Amino acid sequence: MSLRVLGVDPGLTRCGIGVLDSAGGRRATLVAAGVVRSVSEDAIDARLLAISRGLRAAIEEHAPDVVAVERVFSQNNTSTVMGTAQVSGIAILLAAERGIPIAMHTPSEVKAAVTGYGRADKKQIQTVLVKLLGLEAPPKPADAADAVAIALTQLWRGPGPVRLDSTGGARTSAQTRWAEAERAARRARESSTSRF
Amino acid sequence: MSLRVLGVDPGLTRCGIGVLDSAGGRRATLVAAGVVRSVSEDAIDARLLAISRGLRAAIEEHAPDVVAVERVFSQNNTSTVMGTAQVSGIAILLAAERGIPIAMHTPSEVKAAVTGYGRADKKQIQTVLVKLLGLEAPPKPADAADAVAIALTQLWRGPGPVRLDSTGGARTSAQTRWAEAERAARRARESSTSRF
Repeated sequence: MSLRVLGVDPGLTRCGIGVLDSAGGRRATLVAAGVVRSVSEDAIDARLLAISRGLRAAIEEHAPDVVAVERVFSQNNTSTVMGTAQVSGIAILLAAERGIPIAMHTPSEVKAAVTGYGRADKKQIQTVLVKLLGLEAPPKPADAADAVAIALTQLWRGPGPVRLDSTGGARTSAQTRWAEAERAARRARESSTSRF
Repeated sequence: MSLRVLGVDPGLTRCGIGVLDSAGGRRATLVAAGVVRSVSEDAIDARLLAISRGLRAAIEEHAPDVVAVERVFSQNNTSTVMGTAQVSGIAILLAAERGIPIAMHTPSEVKAAVTGYGRADKKQIQTVLVKLLGLEAPPKPADAADAVAIALTQLWRGPGPVRLDSTGGARTSAQTRWAEAERAARRARESSTSRF
């Protein structure tokens, strides 16, 4: 069975989203790539609401098996880091509410996984994406390409969603049971909802 | 009409919640104070889900007119700041989804508003809370007291919720219209739901 990953490059002005299906071995198929935007002049509540609605729509449309989110560090780019962290928390919550396992990868893990080189630049990453996914051009804007790279990192690094925790390491059996219970509850809710 | 403020001291291990009603002038009544906890050994998705459920329950139980959240800075306490920022984003989103205006205050604004001194310590803040709210002891744990202080700051600083934006400044007329439209939509949803 194919594994579908939704990658998220969290951002308050442009939040990148990339959806990949595994296609055996190291091959993958691009399902969707784009960005959710918010208006920088708006208040923070309106902005987080706009981003959350776009993320929710993408999760519901693509029904990923795992959501992979770029890990944000507080020392990077401090003028925007708080908004980025807020969006990453919302992306993780939206997945968790649906019982979808999440994983996080640092920027250097993404670079190393995709290009083999932890300090690769965006152009090198995009070249790999074009070649590997059989594209005519890299996904645009750059945040969408970054999200696809995060999804690819998850496909290549992860043995499977229920065995991955938030640090990309092995889930404990308790975490696995929690994820399974969440999924069962979600299915029960969905089947009970469908009666109406 | 009395104004109800729900203050949030965002945190991933203990998220403080304090609810105050204005009682005329600078007087206020304590409605509730406590913390929502998550288990530090759990994965980040389970933790954010636990905190969001507690925050959602508090917002739905107390139906505040405004939600005031402590503003997080990336330079403070970097080991926990990302989790704190994620929780603050979720608190803002939960309010925004319900059309409830939000406001943010920095720690020094809270100290200055409550004690008149921007570098006051926690004990000085708690002494004011006990005296002003007619309590026998300060709210426990400290995160709950901090959340009450944030709510009090909002009561004392803010002229009214719809005139406050996320920075504590004046809303633009567009933001005010947006907030009013959200409230109208919320009321419409609530009244349509109540038919079933």
